[in-house]
Amino acid sequence: MPGKNVLIVYAHQEPKSMNGSLKNIAVDVLQKQGCSIIISDLYSMNFNAAATRNDITGELCNPQHFRYGAETMEAFKKGVLCEDILKEQEKVKVADLIIFQFPLYWYSFPAIMKGWIDRVFVQGFAFDFPGCYDTGLLKDKLALLSFTTGGTEEMFSKDGMRGDIRYLLWPMQHGIMHFCGFKVLAPQITYAPEYVGDEKRKNMLLLWARRLEAIWDERPIECTPPWYFQ
Amino acid sequence: MPGKNVLIVYAHQEPKSMNGSLKNIAVDVLQKQGCSIIISDLYSMNFNAAATRNDITGELCNPQHFRYGAETMEAFKKGVLCEDILKEQEKVKVADLIIFQFPLYWYSFPAIMKGWIDRVFVQGFAFDFPGCYDTGLLKDKLALLSFTTGGTEEMFSKDGMRGDIRYLLWPMQHGIMHFCGFKVLAPQITYAPEYVGDEKRKNMLLLWARRLEAIWDERPIECTPPWYFQ
Repeated sequence: MPGKNVLIVYAHQEPKSMNGSLKNIAVDVLQKQGCSIIISDLYSMNFNAAATRNDITGELCNPQHFRYGAETMEAFKKGVLCEDILKEQEKVKVADLIIFQFPLYWYSFPAIMKGWIDRVFVQGFAFDFPGCYDTGLLKDKLALLSFTTGGTEEMFSKDGMRGDIRYLLWPMQHGIMHFCGFKVLAPQITYAPEYVGDEKRKNMLLLWARRLEAIWDERPIECTPPWYFQ
Repeated sequence: MPGKNVLIVYAHQEPKSMNGSLKNIAVDVLQKQGCSIIISDLYSMNFNAAATRNDITGELCNPQHFRYGAETMEAFKKGVLCEDILKEQEKVKVADLIIFQFPLYWYSFPAIMKGWIDRVFVQGFAFDFPGCYDTGLLKDKLALLSFTTGGTEEMFSKDGMRGDIRYLLWPMQHGIMHFCGFKVLAPQITYAPEYVGDEKRKNMLLLWARRLEAIWDERPIECTPPWYFQ
């Protein structure tokens, strides 16, 4: 879609991985549509995951008692957040759609991607009070979680060992994305690519490519209680 | 309890924080019982959260296509995981109880603590196939999540804005702790300490201290489907 900006936040160590291929095919398809793509390749950037006082340049409001949330909120207002956070926030600002591409680690994001969220989605920038959930500050943007799993789809069913995949989507989709106001598109879940052959893996990539061809027509999903866990 | 070993994995930047106090009071109470305590103070240690090939010292099995899980499993067997992971695994090995003390960040662990889990709970050490959930390799240990929240208890109720707190406990308690075999003790949730006065905060600490006095008599909770989300 000409004029649309897409940010891909990508967390995999290996370019030849399924995650790398899913990222690459997304770039191909979206570029063909005329979208502008920016990629934050977190491992290549050696992105710092830890939320520390180094995230604020200059004076702290209360150096005697450091509160990360309060200090980063003030630093955002004053424009004194550290450089790498500011750069990522600029990318978020211009994005119409953010795709998070990652392997599921322990039912959640890999730490390096969790650190991107912890540090970039600062109060005042991504949300405020009021100004969260449907009125979150990023409410004009779309978010989409695209991830690979170790377990099969059956394992992640309601009666499967790992439980319904929606259970683990809750903190990510509702607790983070919806909290910041994002309209959440259905997740793209690539189940257990390591346990299938090349042909099936190619098909998984094709499915993602086909979906992306019509991505701008998709409607966001509901990701709120009470029906969510029914 | 004389003879019991407790590991406290602690993630807060500020020693004077509520999390710092909760950690300190735990040390006091447990030491009085005769327990041995080890603390992994992740921010002070400048703990590396990112799962990279640096976690394996020496040759990779497949340097052409890096797979973090497979490589760390092999490195664990050969004893060639990097030093900081090995040190944390030694602490885990001797622990009867692991307490995770942290502020809830985005419905989950702060990234630095997620990184500790991503990197320390290596296949072959913490779990295997088979050898997960009830037969997980850490099945003779207890785990307890002790955390503070920004939101109030009402917000984290079933009909509250943030949804039942149990929803977000699922990936952490079932997906990580139970997966590794831990017997999970009920979480210690200190709601919104920043929004109450000193007297109430003191009381929150006292509640934690009282609970810890009888902690060795507690029975683990159930943290599996299908009834979990009812």
